[in-house]
Order: sequence, then C-alpha cells, then structure tokens
Amino acid sequence: MSDTGTSDTGTSGTGTSGTVSADVAAALAEVVGRDQVLTGDQISPDYGHDEMLSAAAQQPGAVVRPASAAEVSGVLRVASAHQLAVTARGSGSGLSGAAIPEPGGLVISLERMNRVLEIDVDNHVAVVQPGVTLSELDEATSAHGLTYPVYPGELSASLGGNVATNAGGMRAVRYGVTRSQVLGLEAVLPTGEVLRTGGKLVKASTGYDLTQLIIGSEGTLAVVTEVTLRLYPRPPHQATVLAPFHTVDEVARAVPKVVHSGVAPLILEYIDGLTMGAITYAQKLDLGVPTEVREKAQAYLLVMLESGHAQRLDEDTEQLGNLLTELGAIDLYVLPGPSARRLVEAREKAFWTSKAAGANDIIDTVVPRAAIPEFLAAAQEIGQRHGAAVFGCGHAGDGNVHLAVFQPDDEVRSALLRELFEASMKLGGLISGEHGIGRAKKRYFLELTDPATIDLMRRIKRAFDPTGILNPGVLLEP
Amino acid sequence: MSDTGTSDTGTSGTGTSGTVSADVAAALAEVVGRDQVLTGDQISPDYGHDEMLSAAAQQPGAVVRPASAAEVSGVLRVASAHQLAVTARGSGSGLSGAAIPEPGGLVISLERMNRVLEIDVDNHVAVVQPGVTLSELDEATSAHGLTYPVYPGELSASLGGNVATNAGGMRAVRYGVTRSQVLGLEAVLPTGEVLRTGGKLVKASTGYDLTQLIIGSEGTLAVVTEVTLRLYPRPPHQATVLAPFHTVDEVARAVPKVVHSGVAPLILEYIDGLTMGAITYAQKLDLGVPTEVREKAQAYLLVMLESGHAQRLDEDTEQLGNLLTELGAIDLYVLPGPSARRLVEAREKAFWTSKAAGANDIIDTVVPRAAIPEFLAAAQEIGQRHGAAVFGCGHAGDGNVHLAVFQPDDEVRSALLRELFEASMKLGGLISGEHGIGRAKKRYFLELTDPATIDLMRRIKRAFDPTGILNPGVLLEP
Repeated sequence: MSDTGTSDTGTSGTGTSGTVSADVAAALAEVVGRDQVLTGDQISPDYGHDEMLSAAAQQPGAVVRPASAAEVSGVLRVASAHQLAVTARGSGSGLSGAAIPEPGGLVISLERMNRVLEIDVDNHVAVVQPGVTLSELDEATSAHGLTYPVYPGELSASLGGNVATNAGGMRAVRYGVTRSQVLGLEAVLPTGEVLRTGGKLVKASTGYDLTQLIIGSEGTLAVVTEVTLRLYPRPPHQATVLAPFHTVDEVARAVPKVVHSGVAPLILEYIDGLTMGAITYAQKLDLGVPTEVREKAQAYLLVMLESGHAQRLDEDTEQLGNLLTELGAIDLYVLPGPSARRLVEAREKAFWTSKAAGANDIIDTVVPRAAIPEFLAAAQEIGQRHGAAVFGCGHAGDGNVHLAVFQPDDEVRSALLRELFEASMKLGGLISGEHGIGRAKKRYFLELTDPATIDLMRRIKRAFDPTGILNPGVLLEP
Repeated sequence: MSDTGTSDTGTSGTGTSGTVSADVAAALAEVVGRDQVLTGDQISPDYGHDEMLSAAAQQPGAVVRPASAAEVSGVLRVASAHQLAVTARGSGSGLSGAAIPEPGGLVISLERMNRVLEIDVDNHVAVVQPGVTLSELDEATSAHGLTYPVYPGELSASLGGNVATNAGGMRAVRYGVTRSQVLGLEAVLPTGEVLRTGGKLVKASTGYDLTQLIIGSEGTLAVVTEVTLRLYPRPPHQATVLAPFHTVDEVARAVPKVVHSGVAPLILEYIDGLTMGAITYAQKLDLGVPTEVREKAQAYLLVMLESGHAQRLDEDTEQLGNLLTELGAIDLYVLPGPSARRLVEAREKAFWTSKAAGANDIIDTVVPRAAIPEFLAAAQEIGQRHGAAVFGCGHAGDGNVHLAVFQPDDEVRSALLRELFEASMKLGGLISGEHGIGRAKKRYFLELTDPATIDLMRRIKRAFDPTGILNPGVLLEP
C-alpha cells in the first residue's frame, strides 16, 4: 500500500524520516515496554488510514500501544523531546482523516485502553477508557437498564474517537451529540501533564469548560485517556414509521412540523429515492412498499419513537401518522421490529453503500433544520453544473445533510465541494455536523472561515500544544 | 456606598485613577455618543456591584451603554488602546461578583442591547441581544407555544449574564443549563474583532467550539453581543408534589431513584426544614402541611412534572407518589397550581430570604447526585466545628447544593468555606454548579485546583485577551 512517508511534509518541528530513530524507539519502549512499540514491517497498514475516502494511507514512524494515562504521559514527553508528530487513534473509523498519521510520525493507538471502568447507576454515569467501543458500552449499560444514546453509523467506533470528532448519529435529534453526553475527561497535554476536567456532574460553572473545548478538537489539543459519560434510562418500547413523499422538498418541509408536534422522535431521517434504492438493494431489504408507491416516491421520512409505556407509544404513533398524512405522505408503513432494525442498520451503512457504489466523497454539512429544502435545491443545481451525481440522506431533525458526491475529477470535485460548503454557510450552516474537518475538509474550512476565528483557534491550539506536535496536519495547519 | 476606587489595584495594565481621563471619555463618546458615556456623579451606584454578599461595591471610571456590536467593538478598541479594565454588565443579578468592576475601570452596560431579534418557530430558535431578560424572552416565546427552559431564581437576569455564568436553575434536571441551550454567539474580542460562533444548529463539528468556551467564562474572554438559543415546545400541563421526609439524608437518597424511574421531572429540589420554614414564612405561604407533619419533617422533596397530555401527567404523578411513599415520605401533597407556583417562587427567592436573615455567604457547590447525603453530613460537621449555621436547599437532581452560611467572622468563615469546597471536591465535585467563581470564590478556586489546569486556563485567557483587559479581577488573576 500507499505512500510510505519518505517525503518531507514540512510540518513544524516534526521528524520526517520514514521511521523513528533507534534512540526514540528505545525511549518509547522504556515507557510502554518493547512489545508495545511497533516500527517498520511490524506496523500493520491499518494504522496508516481511517475511512476518509479521498486520502492515501501514510506510514507512521512508530506505533505505540500504551495501557494507562501514565504511559500516554511518558510517550508524549518522549514525543515532545524529539518534536515528533503525534496522532492518537481509536478504532480508525473516522471519515475525515483525523486519524491519518504524519509520515514518519508517531501513532498512539488506544486499543489496549479498552475497559469500561464503571457503570454508576445512581449517578447515571459511565466511566470508560478511550478504546472502548460503542457496542461494548451498549452491552455494559443494557445490563443495568441504561443506555448511552449516541449512535453514529459505526458501532465499532471507540468512545475516544467519538470525543475527538464530537460524533452525532441518528439519535441526536432526541438526545444530542457526544458533546451533550460527556461530563468529564482525563486528558494528557504534550508536556505529559495529566488533566482532569468536569466529573460525574451534569452542571458546573467553575472556570473554562475544558471538557467542551477538547471535544471535537480532533486530536489537536490533548490525548484523551478517560471519558465520563451521561447515561439515560433505556425505554423499552419503540415504533418506526416510514413515510414516502413525492418530493425531497415535501419531506424536508415536514421535518420542523414533526419536531414541533411534541412527539420527540428518537430518529428523524430523510432518505432520498436513489439512496433508499441503493441501501435496500445492498441489504436485500423488503419493506413492503409496493412498486407503484416506490415509483412515485422521490424521498422518504423515517421516524422512530420510543417510550417507557406501550400505550403512549401507540397514541404517539397514531398522532405522528395523522400529521404525516396531512403533510402529504403518499402512504404510511409502520415497520415491524425486525424490518425497522434492518432499515436503520441499512441507513447506518449508507456510507458503505455509497463507497461501494464508487462515491468520491461524502460530506455531512449542517444547516438550520428549516433550511434543508433550500440547501438540497442548491446542492442539485451545483452538482448538475459540475457534471456530478449528488444524492444522499440525512439527520433531518438536526439539519445534518449527508451527501455522496460522484465526480472522479479531483479539481472539478474540489470546486463543487467548495460551492456546496459556501451554499451551506450562506444558509447559516457549517461545513461539518458530525464527521469533523480533519484532513478531508481542512482546505475549505481554512478558506471559508473568518480569518479572525482561525487565528483565535490557532492561539488556543498553541495554549495546549506550543510546539505543535499534536496531529499537526489536521484542522488548522495550512 | 463603598470604596470609590482611588486605590491602586495593581491589575495588569489597567488605568487605576478614580475616573477615566478626558481623552478616554472623548474617545468613548465618539463611539457611543456623549449621552451614553457616564462618568463621576453620573454613575449610579448600581453599576458598582452585583448581588455577591461579601463584597464592597466599586466605583468604575466610566460606564458606556453601546447599542450595537459595532459600538462594543469601538469601545473595546478604545479600552485596548488605553489598557483600561473592562467589565461587561447585564442585569447585575449575579451572585459571585463577576459584574463588580475594577476601581477606575470601564463598565460596558448592555442595557440598551435589549431586543429579541427573532423567534424562529421552524428551527425552534430565539436570537436575542445580551440585555434581554429571562422574563422578556419568556413572554416572546410563550406567544408561539415555545419555551426557553433555563430558569435561575431571578427572571430579571439578562441572557448575556446567563451566558457569562452558565446559569442553571431548577429546570436543569430536565433541560440542562445555559450551556445546553446556546447554539451560537456573536462576541467581540479586546482587539475589536467581532466573531460569530455556531448558528441555528443543534450540532456542529467544525473546529473548536468557541461557543462553549465563551459560555461560563464570566466576561474574561470576550463581550457577548448576540445569543442564539434553543427553544422547546411548551408543555401545557404541570403537576407539583411536595413530600416531607424525616431526614435530609432520606430525601437525598430518594433523588437518584426518582431520576431513574423515568418520570423525567421538570424540577427536583430538596429544601431543608429550616429553609422551608424561612421561605414559607417570608412569603406568607400556607401549603396545607399540618403541624404534626412539619414537626417531624427535617426536609422536603419538591417535584414538578410536566406533560403535553393531562392523562399521562396524572399517571406519572401517581407513579411518583407511590415511589416517594416507598422511599419513606411522611405524607404527599399534590399542590394546586397557585400554591405550587408560589412555593416555586418562594424557593427561587431563597437567596433573598437568606440574605434578609443575615447570611454571610451563599455557596452552590456541585457534587455527583448520589453524593449529596455524604456532602450534607460533611457540611453539618464542618459548620458545627466552625460555630456556624449552615443550611439550605438545592437542585437535588443535579447534585447542586445551595447553602447559606451564617458566620460573621471573615477569617473563620473563609476557613469553613475552604473546607466545604474541599469536601465537595473529595466527593468528585466542583466549587460552583451555576453561580460561577467570579471574585467571590476565586481564592478557593486558585488554591484548590490543579496548577496545570489553572496554567492552561491562563494560556487560553491570553489567546483571547493578551493584555488582560477583560474583567481582570475575576476568575484567574491571583
């Protein structure tokens, strides 16, 4: 595979040779043990990439696998002493390239820090190490009738990675995103200083909120070594309604009305006709929508409700159905449990379906919920003008539009993406709702954001990381 | 009133004479107009203090009343050029002294920036200027069947002040605090640069979250000139249950069970017997609790539920009642609307009741919800050892304990407060849940917080405010 990092990347103060020196390797081994330092051929190609579509993998100079915050601290002291670029890595399921290392740099893989340290039922809190995956946490919480509600598409994603990108997912319309659930962190600065922020506390007004600042910083401010998360009671009952509409516009216009109705959906997704065709075909899914409806439906609204009470759920489902019919739904399908689960899974895998279909880029721009129709119209126009297919689905309740872009010419696609982001920002939106900027959208972020804001973010970056060793190619570096 | 700021405070680069020079006054008048610059006798004593109990008022050198972000920007450029300390001021209802100006410094009063700019029903968003009060916003949202759910005790508080302290209040157990509702800001740096952060967006992962960093920074990072807030449907039905218990400990132990039950209380407060006596007496409130119950009850749990459906509310109220009875409630009182409103208002005014009773300090430390019993036991012991009465009430669902401390000797009280905060932190808590650090608790904050964390916060402060003109005496300065 891939470029192996012999090139000079010019990142500030970063070692750029293909592998770390014997001195550095020995210093790292002293911290984590010889077996936990990988160099050269020992490094699996997996450490060189995440799931960003349009990037080549990179060969790091070394991979270390610490087992504790103290070891992460020791590793960062070594990296600081040698001005080695550091990329922290969870499961590598990110979509924006924030886990792609600098060539010749150091990967801190958190795979061994994978313990659920505590499920605290009285405080509704979980304390986890960063390498714990969402599916592992789900298993641990369900044993107590609790749930951690953030469900981005990929359940093999790690909580550390979720914190780094401020992961969202389909249930954000009800519960909010990662940022809404993280109550405290343990995190290590490049100096090796170990900080504790927040705690098992749902509120605090005691100095700057370092927890919130580190969330979404994509590994550029600190390495997170422990996460304190808010949990919720796990409601036992769920109902899922699929509503085909004649146009995407109608679907998008229905969204604010559903939010306003008070049924508090757990999931509120739109799926355009092409995407629905692709994901149901890919997952061999029959939802019982007859051909004549499918032919008329250019888009679908997928709504899931949850409740602690079966009867209330029935009433809410009926209220929702009536509302959707008023709003122009062609028909309504209350999906039985297994079909609903399979459709939600298929929707979660939309990224993989798009990737398999040859999409060249995936974006997840976010606009005010009510601006989705305007944004989608703009996206169609921009796509057509650049000879590109642009379609998708999205977390409609959040205004978070996911689009697969099919345009193999890098230059044309780049112009197209820039226009898409500009269109979003003109509507009050931002470039990414949940995937992050990483390497994938850095160029657009730096070009389209007010320079005073970028300068301030760079000063904040220096407050944490004065010599710029943490994920230098990501987010802010030109 | 008070010390009038002729003393040298030694704050970095700050003008320290009793009033601003004629040059400075002229430069300010050029920005905001002559009528909007107050100096000397024109300055009402109200501009010299907030509601912090243990502080003397200070005489600012000038008060300016800008009408726009552009004017705030101009004022900050003047302040920067003259190294003048700047204190932004909303309604002055804060409890920690963050709106007390430096002697001779500049107060930017946001009283004229008091317009609700937009209630956006489709996006469930309000856009307000910082001088808008909570009661003004409540009026504006109720017209649309929406609500802004943060209700700290004082409805004359401004949204700008709420952002500065990350205000909480009784409904945080259901909706979260100010931090949970602010989607975007317009804010001005000391350079005069006007930033926009976030937007009408419930999620974003596009660079560092400057919105969250500015919230709770108590005027030390930027001056907020516009706030974009999340709104919610306003449920029409509410029910209130008052449950007396034999001991505070029993009340505190009931709290996690109520949260876990799934009834999702809007309000979940504990009120100790002394405080209940004081607030009902002060407000002439008869709740129908017979004398023999009052004599046995050392503490009360106050629970309010809300719902869009009257019948569901009845069912939930019954479920809650059964649970509280199981948990040892002496009796249950479902309060009729007017009594419930008056009790909640009386609870909101507990601060004023304590002040009138001669309390020397009010604290609002926060601990993990399940640690309230241990913390209250520690607080009693610490109070007794220092010959002080310590009692109160609190946002039990949030672990946010409000205590009035009656001990007039400054030195003894200071030792006592330090021990209270240490006890809270030993249980995983922090010094303030919602009032902020300000001037009132700065000393304890600086002494009890890890030095690496304080150093990092100071570096962040410098990233925003390199010459230290923004609220220099607050939060971080020794």
